[in-house]
Amino acid sequence: MTTSTENIHTIRWEGAADGNLVLIDQTRLPLDLVELTCRDLDSVWEAIQQLRVRGAPAIGIAAAYGVVIGLQDAGDLDQQSFNRRVTEVCDHLATSRPTAVNLFWALDRMRRRAEQLQPAHTPTELCERLLEEARAIHDEDREMCHAIGRYGADLLTDGTGVLTHCNAGGLATAEYGTALSVFFTAQDQGKQLHVYIDETRPLLQGARLTAWELKQRGVDSTLICDSMAAQVMREGRVQAVITGADRIAANGDVANKIGTYGVAVLARAHDIPFYVAAPTSTFDLSLPDGDGIPIEQRASEEVTHGFGRQTAPDGVAVYNPAFDVTPAEYVRAIITERGIIQPVTAQMVREMVSALP
Amino acid sequence: MTTSTENIHTIRWEGAADGNLVLIDQTRLPLDLVELTCRDLDSVWEAIQQLRVRGAPAIGIAAAYGVVIGLQDAGDLDQQSFNRRVTEVCDHLATSRPTAVNLFWALDRMRRRAEQLQPAHTPTELCERLLEEARAIHDEDREMCHAIGRYGADLLTDGTGVLTHCNAGGLATAEYGTALSVFFTAQDQGKQLHVYIDETRPLLQGARLTAWELKQRGVDSTLICDSMAAQVMREGRVQAVITGADRIAANGDVANKIGTYGVAVLARAHDIPFYVAAPTSTFDLSLPDGDGIPIEQRASEEVTHGFGRQTAPDGVAVYNPAFDVTPAEYVRAIITERGIIQPVTAQMVREMVSALP
Repeated sequence: MTTSTENIHTIRWEGAADGNLVLIDQTRLPLDLVELTCRDLDSVWEAIQQLRVRGAPAIGIAAAYGVVIGLQDAGDLDQQSFNRRVTEVCDHLATSRPTAVNLFWALDRMRRRAEQLQPAHTPTELCERLLEEARAIHDEDREMCHAIGRYGADLLTDGTGVLTHCNAGGLATAEYGTALSVFFTAQDQGKQLHVYIDETRPLLQGARLTAWELKQRGVDSTLICDSMAAQVMREGRVQAVITGADRIAANGDVANKIGTYGVAVLARAHDIPFYVAAPTSTFDLSLPDGDGIPIEQRASEEVTHGFGRQTAPDGVAVYNPAFDVTPAEYVRAIITERGIIQPVTAQMVREMVSALP
Repeated sequence: MTTSTENIHTIRWEGAADGNLVLIDQTRLPLDLVELTCRDLDSVWEAIQQLRVRGAPAIGIAAAYGVVIGLQDAGDLDQQSFNRRVTEVCDHLATSRPTAVNLFWALDRMRRRAEQLQPAHTPTELCERLLEEARAIHDEDREMCHAIGRYGADLLTDGTGVLTHCNAGGLATAEYGTALSVFFTAQDQGKQLHVYIDETRPLLQGARLTAWELKQRGVDSTLICDSMAAQVMREGRVQAVITGADRIAANGDVANKIGTYGVAVLARAHDIPFYVAAPTSTFDLSLPDGDGIPIEQRASEEVTHGFGRQTAPDGVAVYNPAFDVTPAEYVRAIITERGIIQPVTAQMVREMVSALP
């Protein structure tokens, strides 16, 4: 068993304000663990754009550090030129993944911090303070993951078999992830778990990323095809299911990677609790229920050309929804960084999410 | 809409007793439809051994024709030498797929027929009669598929959406298959169906074979990942599920391709009838229930290297059961060539299967 934080850093900063951003190149996983050192703005932009760093929180953190990198040669600029440079850097980074909400949020926060600090500081001091802000964004996300892990780990006892779908892990966040944080934290507490990992077709995030993360951190785990989850449950191998979430409506309906809903139905049929682990930022209280969540349809080729090879006839019709919605009634509890929502009702959601942090 | 029998022949015989066996080379599907002409015993043996022809009934039929091919140059032999040749040919073909029950059954039937005929016929006449026997095996299987199709089609109305898992089609049998025969027959009757096809990980028989067969025969169909079946049901797109079976116990518990059990549980949760289509030869009345059916575990590489490329970390543990068992209580009816078993109880199974054919 290896404990975690020494080993894997999805994102880390090397050195002082004149240092570098170092990322795990996720496009090389699971076969190669390669760190990518970003020394200029273009390499940060390219890393985000090419999905070398992925997952909403991780993208935001990388972009925040990217702002510091973009200002490293601005030490001699006058105040007005420095301001212009901050705007240019943030605007440029914002074009790397046009739909990533956390990216814009992190860049706005860095921009606001620069404005707030500016009158009292030299450009060099500003770079140091902006590095502190990026570190704060990083630390807050790390702490959020750990808080979810601590609340969730209380739900699991030693010797539990659990099943997860897709990747709600440290690769998408500052460190421990959401669903996977529960497993890592339970292990840190000395509980022995065994995790069954749905490979998660079509893009195999379970096989490629979750299997890799659990292996890296020494969590006992077994990879299965999505179609095997029911059999694993029937054989009594799992006592809990935990997944992440992409978006949660006000009544607790959960949008997540396609296949999550099926796992929830199977869990109920086998009397196994189905848990969702997600930060309160995942809730969208403007949506009364899951019916309002649009389901993105993705390209046929993800199904017909799995990994580089055609495995279905030419011209076959394909249905490839990226997400599904699991009704709240199937969700035993939602594990947030503020505590556990249980039972999952509109009132319980409102009380947890609307409370002051 | 193309009607079927003109177009696709998994197996066909060309010419008289001195003719050839022609097979669809299933290893080339779904990208290429290539017919393989077998003119000597070795090419028949190789076709079975290399899975160019696959599916228990289809293997038996190919082997029966293979016996005729192996005797084509035996016209001048004396009776004793001819007998020896029959034994040699059958013994050789039996080594092509050592665990294929239908292979041994078909070869035994051909051998017995040769013994029975022999005193009264010349070697040339014997070859002609043995071709008739091979054709009889072929015709009986074809008729069995059609009978299943007719009984099953009565369960479906025009405009029905159906879901199937794996490949219980014509490629594995003489012509129409079992589950797919229901769809082909319904279409022949003028009913318009829409079939959702589970791709069926790990070996993708749904994507490779079922999608190809339905397309060839002009049945409207849509390919999905196994993890999408629940969503398709939730959206009201299917009104019935039909699969094949590998083995059925005396109480109606059904062993079939991994993932079938999960589909059955999901169907029940969505109040959709789950049907199994299988000939009475699939029943094993010596097994009181499904607990006695051994579940074969297959190689990890089917999951970790599914698309010809490694998609999971080195050394990851994999659970890869080839089959699962669906308890009889989930099966609304079993469609056989003799009629429909409904409700699925030990008594109803016994009455249908033990009755004289």
